Amino acid sequence: MTKGKNYNLIKMSLEGVRVEFSSQKPIILLKEEKGDRYLPIWVGAFEASAIALELSHIKTPRPMTHDLIVNILRTLNTSIENIEITDIRDNTFYAIINMKDVNKRLLRIDSRPSDAIAIAVRNKCDIFAAEHVLESAGLRIQSIDDEIEKFREFLDHISPEDFKEK
Amino acid sequence: MTKGKNYNLIKMSLEGVRVEFSSQKPIILLKEEKGDRYLPIWVGAFEASAIALELSHIKTPRPMTHDLIVNILRTLNTSIENIEITDIRDNTFYAIINMKDVNKRLLRIDSRPSDAIAIAVRNKCDIFAAEHVLESAGLRIQSIDDEIEKFREFLDHISPEDFKEK
Repeated sequence: MTKGKNYNLIKMSLEGVRVEFSSQKPIILLKEEKGDRYLPIWVGAFEASAIALELSHIKTPRPMTHDLIVNILRTLNTSIENIEITDIRDNTFYAIINMKDVNKRLLRIDSRPSDAIAIAVRNKCDIFAAEHVLESAGLRIQSIDDEIEKFREFLDHISPEDFKEK
Repeated sequence: MTKGKNYNLIKMSLEGVRVEFSSQKPIILLKEEKGDRYLPIWVGAFEASAIALELSHIKTPRPMTHDLIVNILRTLNTSIENIEITDIRDNTFYAIINMKDVNKRLLRIDSRPSDAIAIAVRNKCDIFAAEHVLESAGLRIQSIDDEIEKFREFLDHISPEDFKEK
């Protein structure tokens, strides 16, 4: 457990991202590394594809928006330390991207969780969730294996064509 | 006219962004400020909405992806000088974002034109196009007034609901 601004932080792993076919809403699934709680976060199709493309190691011919963010930060010698899912209010999640600039000054930037996670997967940095967020929105899913399997299948079968500009 | 890396740069104004209903492809329309050539650029729906929301002065409750980029740059004391549409190859446009970091060092970052323009409208910075791009992809549209009118109508009638995460 790590200490956040005013809360304890739980280290999460990204299980995957997929479209929930019943609702057609893309979903990101995080899981606490040392526990059995899952955190589902519904996101926009664009942000979901930004994460899925990276997880699938699909290279696009031109930098996508989150690649652009990562390129800008590298050019500015700014490192991404980790991201935090900091809060949930009215079913809306809030997040912070922790960065260190060229002078090692710590910067905390507000972000939607979807953007923060799309950046985190590109930098392979840690993803944390505040304990109170997990308490309020975390789920203990019994038959999670099936769900994970569906994620993996989804990720195995996507291609750049699924996300290209139409 | 301004001098780019290896080409002359023409200052452009952003006429608007709208969905081309016949093809359902969103389009950005640039126009040269001191001439009558237009540059239409087809983009993804997400990037088009990022530009349209800003042009319409619609504030979203949480920072959208391009707001995040602008927030990051401000926090890092990096200014956006201007953007350049630098090339077109195989019907694909290329762009550069020119920035100055805290030490006034000029940085040129590769970008898709849609991302570059979404950032430019948030920073109210100049948009340039290379002369050879305008020569190859520029259009002199006779009845452009109708087109502009359609853009304006589109922009007058969009709302955050048209772009919200579904």
